[in-house]
Amino acid sequence: MQGQAQQQAYDRGITIFSPDGRLYQVEYAREAVKRGTASIGVRTEDGVVLAVDKRIRSPLLEGTSVEKLHKADDHIGIASAGHVADARQLIDFARQNAQTNRLRYGEPVGVETLTKEVTDHIQQYTQVGGARPFGVALIIGGIENGEPRLYETDPSGTPYEWKALAVGADRGDIQEFLEENYDGGDSLDDGIVLALEALASVNDDELNPEGLALATIETETEEYAELDTDEIREYLDANDLLAGEDEDEEDEEDEEDDEE
Amino acid sequence: MQGQAQQQAYDRGITIFSPDGRLYQVEYAREAVKRGTASIGVRTEDGVVLAVDKRIRSPLLEGTSVEKLHKADDHIGIASAGHVADARQLIDFARQNAQTNRLRYGEPVGVETLTKEVTDHIQQYTQVGGARPFGVALIIGGIENGEPRLYETDPSGTPYEWKALAVGADRGDIQEFLEENYDGGDSLDDGIVLALEALASVNDDELNPEGLALATIETETEEYAELDTDEIREYLDANDLLAGEDEDEEDEEDEEDDEE
Amino acid sequence: MQGQAQQQAYDRGITIFSPDGRLYQVEYAREAVKRGTASIGVRTEDGVVLAVDKRIRSPLLEGTSVEKLHKADDHIGIASAGHVADARQLIDFARQNAQTNRLRYGEPVGVETLTKEVTDHIQQYTQVGGARPFGVALIIGGIENGEPRLYETDPSGTPYEWKALAVGADRGDIQEFLEENYDGGDSLDDGIVLALEALASVNDDELNPEGLALATIETETEEYAELDTDEIREYLDANDLLAGEDEDEEDEEDEEDDEE
Amino acid sequence: MQGQAQQQAYDRGITIFSPDGRLYQVEYAREAVKRGTASIGVRTEDGVVLAVDKRIRSPLLEGTSVEKLHKADDHIGIASAGHVADARQLIDFARQNAQTNRLRYGEPVGVETLTKEVTDHIQQYTQVGGARPFGVALIIGGIENGEPRLYETDPSGTPYEWKALAVGADRGDIQEFLEENYDGGDSLDDGIVLALEALASVNDDELNPEGLALATIETETEEYAELDTDEIREYLDANDLLAGEDEDEEDEEDEEDDEE
Amino acid sequence: MQGQAQQQAYDRGITIFSPDGRLYQVEYAREAVKRGTASIGVRTEDGVVLAVDKRIRSPLLEGTSVEKLHKADDHIGIASAGHVADARQLIDFARQNAQTNRLRYGEPVGVETLTKEVTDHIQQYTQVGGARPFGVALIIGGIENGEPRLYETDPSGTPYEWKALAVGADRGDIQEFLEENYDGGDSLDDGIVLALEALASVNDDELNPEGLALATIETETEEYAELDTDEIREYLDANDLLAGEDEDEEDEEDEEDDEE
Amino acid sequence: MQGQAQQQAYDRGITIFSPDGRLYQVEYAREAVKRGTASIGVRTEDGVVLAVDKRIRSPLLEGTSVEKLHKADDHIGIASAGHVADARQLIDFARQNAQTNRLRYGEPVGVETLTKEVTDHIQQYTQVGGARPFGVALIIGGIENGEPRLYETDPSGTPYEWKALAVGADRGDIQEFLEENYDGGDSLDDGIVLALEALASVNDDELNPEGLALATIETETEEYAELDTDEIREYLDANDLLAGEDEDEEDEEDEEDDEE
Amino acid sequence: MQGQAQQQAYDRGITIFSPDGRLYQVEYAREAVKRGTASIGVRTEDGVVLAVDKRIRSPLLEGTSVEKLHKADDHIGIASAGHVADARQLIDFARQNAQTNRLRYGEPVGVETLTKEVTDHIQQYTQVGGARPFGVALIIGGIENGEPRLYETDPSGTPYEWKALAVGADRGDIQEFLEENYDGGDSLDDGIVLALEALASVNDDELNPEGLALATIETETEEYAELDTDEIREYLDANDLLAGEDEDEEDEEDEEDDEE
Repeated sequence: MQGQAQQQAYDRGITIFSPDGRLYQVEYAREAVKRGTASIGVRTEDGVVLAVDKRIRSPLLEGTSVEKLHKADDHIGIASAGHVADARQLIDFARQNAQTNRLRYGEPVGVETLTKEVTDHIQQYTQVGGARPFGVALIIGGIENGEPRLYETDPSGTPYEWKALAVGADRGDIQEFLEENYDGGDSLDDGIVLALEALASVNDDELNPEGLALATIETETEEYAELDTDEIREYLDANDLLAGEDEDEEDEEDEEDDEE
Repeated sequence: MQGQAQQQAYDRGITIFSPDGRLYQVEYAREAVKRGTASIGVRTEDGVVLAVDKRIRSPLLEGTSVEKLHKADDHIGIASAGHVADARQLIDFARQNAQTNRLRYGEPVGVETLTKEVTDHIQQYTQVGGARPFGVALIIGGIENGEPRLYETDPSGTPYEWKALAVGADRGDIQEFLEENYDGGDSLDDGIVLALEALASVNDDELNPEGLALATIETETEEYAELDTDEIREYLDANDLLAGEDEDEEDEEDEEDDEE
Repeated sequence: MQGQAQQQAYDRGITIFSPDGRLYQVEYAREAVKRGTASIGVRTEDGVVLAVDKRIRSPLLEGTSVEKLHKADDHIGIASAGHVADARQLIDFARQNAQTNRLRYGEPVGVETLTKEVTDHIQQYTQVGGARPFGVALIIGGIENGEPRLYETDPSGTPYEWKALAVGADRGDIQEFLEENYDGGDSLDDGIVLALEALASVNDDELNPEGLALATIETETEEYAELDTDEIREYLDANDLLAGEDEDEEDEEDEEDDEE
Repeated sequence: MQGQAQQQAYDRGITIFSPDGRLYQVEYAREAVKRGTASIGVRTEDGVVLAVDKRIRSPLLEGTSVEKLHKADDHIGIASAGHVADARQLIDFARQNAQTNRLRYGEPVGVETLTKEVTDHIQQYTQVGGARPFGVALIIGGIENGEPRLYETDPSGTPYEWKALAVGADRGDIQEFLEENYDGGDSLDDGIVLALEALASVNDDELNPEGLALATIETETEEYAELDTDEIREYLDANDLLAGEDEDEEDEEDEEDDEE
Repeated sequence: MQGQAQQQAYDRGITIFSPDGRLYQVEYAREAVKRGTASIGVRTEDGVVLAVDKRIRSPLLEGTSVEKLHKADDHIGIASAGHVADARQLIDFARQNAQTNRLRYGEPVGVETLTKEVTDHIQQYTQVGGARPFGVALIIGGIENGEPRLYETDPSGTPYEWKALAVGADRGDIQEFLEENYDGGDSLDDGIVLALEALASVNDDELNPEGLALATIETETEEYAELDTDEIREYLDANDLLAGEDEDEEDEEDEEDDEE
Repeated sequence: MQGQAQQQAYDRGITIFSPDGRLYQVEYAREAVKRGTASIGVRTEDGVVLAVDKRIRSPLLEGTSVEKLHKADDHIGIASAGHVADARQLIDFARQNAQTNRLRYGEPVGVETLTKEVTDHIQQYTQVGGARPFGVALIIGGIENGEPRLYETDPSGTPYEWKALAVGADRGDIQEFLEENYDGGDSLDDGIVLALEALASVNDDELNPEGLALATIETETEEYAELDTDEIREYLDANDLLAGEDEDEEDEEDEEDDEE
Repeated sequence: MQGQAQQQAYDRGITIFSPDGRLYQVEYAREAVKRGTASIGVRTEDGVVLAVDKRIRSPLLEGTSVEKLHKADDHIGIASAGHVADARQLIDFARQNAQTNRLRYGEPVGVETLTKEVTDHIQQYTQVGGARPFGVALIIGGIENGEPRLYETDPSGTPYEWKALAVGADRGDIQEFLEENYDGGDSLDDGIVLALEALASVNDDELNPEGLALATIETETEEYAELDTDEIREYLDANDLLAGEDEDEEDEEDEEDDEE
């Protein structure tokens, strides 16, 4: 481990190793991910659940325009955390890749294949000069050969497969909650509840449906579907997680950073 | 959060993350937006209202040439705040995009589609080296499928959808005014008045019609229309917001910065 | 506002924002404009007047070769202030643009259209790396649809339309003079006199005809015409502005900077 | 040998020699390799054994997605240590190279040929500017002309052939263990046991089958085959190397570095 | 005006403005011009005279190879001062331009046209990165439409037309001499004598014919012609300017700088 | 000659001269050569001898994979010292060049021709930016027109022809030994013994056959041939140079540097 | 003139002017020339003589491979001083140029034409970024239109024509010797003796034939011819310049610098 002064010497060039073998720009991009609100993915037998915390910073802002949950293909959804504009680039890249696969091979792209196309794209931005890394982590969930699959891409361009995971703010605490409460045999409903409880665990056990987005990709139908606000409210209400309506405006200044 | 000295180390390269995951050049571009006079967008059921503060720095300057309000297509208008010359590039980009859409698909471009084409363009300037970010925020308003839509693009390349918003100088105060007074069911007239009142709220409750520009895109006609100075004067007069004529020359030095 | 030391950190890279959102290289290019002798444009009903101070630094120098006044097209003239060699590039760009317009559309280019082509070109040099901004401001005057039009381009690439304006050395004082004395209904003759008086106001009320250049674009004829030295002398004489012949060699050293 | 201050002067540029003839970026990339968990290769008469330590950082992470062991072609496997995303690029490069060879020459690529294609590719990133070196070492094993072959590629782009080797964390200690215990005439089974014992020698003589991956390329069949977790468990059990199940979560923070 | 320390901050980048709007690299290129020996141009009614000081640094050096006087076309000559190798590039550029003009339009290029092609070329090297400015000034003289014309190009790319001028070492003193003694109605002979006297004025009123080169472009013949050493000697002798033969070797060290 | 502080200022840019006319990066690349173990070339009437010290750093490393001796064509061999991965690039370049020559001209490439193709390639990396020099020296030996030829390429790209030479570690001492003992009329056998004695002279007069590689290109057959370990052992034994078997593992740390 | 500290600020960028108008990289390249051993050119009526000091640093080095004397075409020879590998590039450039001229125009290239093609090539490396200047000076001698011609190219890209000249180490002293002893009407033999005496004048009046190379291009035959060692020895002997055989190994360290 290097001291503070030493560190500063190696983190200004984009693609340079430090004496202890670290790529600081990639590590700082991971910090950009932590600055974004949390996103969660849960894999169950019945399908994949994606849940994101959108934390709306003004009542005049249309919550639907805070893009953290995306349909990449009929059978694949992507949740993101971190730099929103960067996420859009990767989502576009993933969508084009999925479409090209359908055109070329006449079948939907595999979740793993798509994930690795994305991570290879991310890696290039960490090795070749002239650009910075992507400041975003993605959760890519979908159905492949009748099996639910759940992947993470990180700013270094490494793919990981998970049973359940969190990215973004409070990742450590939420992941711990997931590890303690995850049971792989859950139904989609149980997966939704687990995701909401995990998000609530770092929010005083209360959530606002307008500040959330939820999507599922069901194993049987292989179709991506987003829940509307009322459905989310019902889930929150039924699990004692529903917050009072005036809570989401507390510290606007801070949140602007989260959303950037 | 980093100290002052630390910060300085990470904000001179164009596309480099700081240790806490921030892109300082993008944040400084946001400061460039704040240096521009305010622009406001208000969405009502009857259409979208765009209002801009042009603050003319000399009586010999033709107010119409201070470009902050633009027709992007028959059904879409764009208001800008920040670096004027940068805004022109994005407006041109948007116009060409709208025209191409008409030619290729035989129909007007969607407001959301157009906004995202613009934000993707903006994002590229924040990640790839060899250029600085755009120092401008845009309010893009228009009618899509019979519905009024109102979007913001920020210097990071993130799109947001709003019911009503302000960008540029005094954004915080004006946005607060809008949040307190916005009622989504307003008519176009009410939207115009709200926009003018919001602008006046940070100008001693007085406005000069020559220093303003106002446009509407009506839901029914789907047509962009700019108000002339007399129409604006009438609105100001009827709402007790009309300023004395000699007020707009007070601090010329400062304003030059605002317009740059 | 930043202190001196802070400022120095952000003005050496060509296209980088400072923490308060400024582009120092563009602001320094504005200083280059101020180092050039003044140019003036006046719009009257009968046409546009362009007047430039050429301040000849040696009696052996041919005054006509000090290029500050240019015919861009039959109906458009351009006066410049600042870095002469940079001005030549923009003039050439404008001329080619005007010619292309005639060839392509069979009609003369509009004054506003031409101005904006020029400012878009200027803006590129402030955003994309590998070049410095243009250190020059242009006054573009001409007739469009039977109306006299008068525009300014600044080093940021922003276009402004004016009734009357000054660029270059002593801009502040001359502009003030114009604001106090401009009357939009003037004839071309009155416009010429106003321009000369404005120039004289910062030169001890005396001018040397050899050190000046004057052009008009008449609304009726739509033709650019330069006045010869004798005509200028008559105007000066008739208005008590004619200087003694030996005055223009006083501080040669300084003037070399002005002309560069 | 240079002092600390001296060293710092030559390690920030990517491809510059230090006064004593060293390429610091390449040496730092070797440090990145040491940050990864260990991988081992053992060559026996009956074939090649590849073993990797995957050290799973969360019970929810799918161990199979921690990519350290790869099939490059039917008869060639590759184990990696270091920066995972970089390894993926080299694996892809190797696979494409192997496929091209089959297409062009109608026969499988030689292990040595493939290794040298990879190292030439690595070397380019250490000499030509615009990119950093690859922060990864590969162990490439396979059968060529009926003979088992085992190669290493290091971040400088140098190929080495080994009887048995370790790369990554604890390389020194594991290599020493291998040197003391290697006997070239071993069967595949003996090779597997040697690899596991070598890994265990730096892990308190205990290993968790879920945290390991093992593959063999048999001389006779010339086929790459991965062992499943149960097979690995049997080997561990039979050799008194089986760890308790709760041991692999000890120092999560540290391990994140190892896997990056 | 900036202090010494301040200045140093803005003069190392090639194309960057200083806070007071100066381009230091261009100003330093002007210093490179002053390091070269003087060149003089004189325009008379009967034609243009070009005279250059070649100051030979060794008796074994062929004076004719010290290239400061060039025939650009039949009717145009160019004298240079400053960096000799840079001058060659501009001369070649001018010659090719003149030839192209003859081929394309079937007539000789105008002196002004040629000058401006050259200055536009020079300007590019002061604005676009990747090269330094040209460290040379040219005097371009010739006949255009039966009129003698005399131009200067400086390192900023600005063209000037002169009746008579000097560039290079001692420019200030020689120019002063020319201003005091120039009479536009001179014959070619008078022009030659004026040029020689001007050169002699800064050389103890003595000149060595071997160290000089002289060319005329006569208005009537429109032909460039160089004088041989004997003709120059006659002119010097007739005007009491002929130096002793051993004078031109005095300070060899210094002269090497002048010629570089 | 410059002091230490001065020197540091000029050795970080790749292709910049120091005030005393040196290219430090090239000199540092020579240091990289010295970090490699020694290679020797000896020319005799009967052919050329190439001998290299491979100093194996682990008993598990296959000595044959330490690439310091290469067949470039049937009649040409190359020994290298320094950065192994760089050497591979030059060897590949040489081999392709030799093959191209055979294809194009139907005859083997000359040794001198090949050497100069290689040195021209090396020189480019010392003058043009974007890459570092090659950190390697080559000894190129072969038969040309029935004559044995022996060349050296150094990191500056200079070719030298030798009767006998050493490159790499201890070059000075070995070269001195060669100069004292070389006799041009030797047979190939005598050349081999001279090379081995020269290597032994800096190794306590003892050598290990596994740590050596030897090749000859015979004048008569014009064929490159490598000796196997037993043949080398015989030569060592016959000349009292054979070392004890356990000697080559002494200072592993150091040797890793040598081989890099 | 600038002080030491000042100078250091302007000599690290390749193509930047210093405040006093100097190009330090070019001046440092001239120092590289001085580090090379001397080369001499002498023009006589009967032809051109080229003589070079090769100072062999080891008795095992083949003197013929120290390339300082080159045949560029049948009628043109080139001697070089400075960085040997750079010289090779320029020689190749010159040879290709000469060949192209023969192919295109069916006649040998002129000596002056060839020289200027080379100097234009050299100049590019001093103005355009991305490469360093050539660290070499050339003496180009040959016959053109029946006349012997002798040129010099320096690192700035300036061509000079000489009667006799020296480049490289001790240029000042040798040039002085030439100036005192040169007589243009010499025969080729006299030219050879003058060149040898000039070289000997800075070597204790003794020279070793193995350390020299001599070539002539005769006016009558227009053919380049190199003298062999015996011919050189005869000249030395006949003029009392022959050194003892053991003298050329004295200060090996120093000489290595000279040859680089």
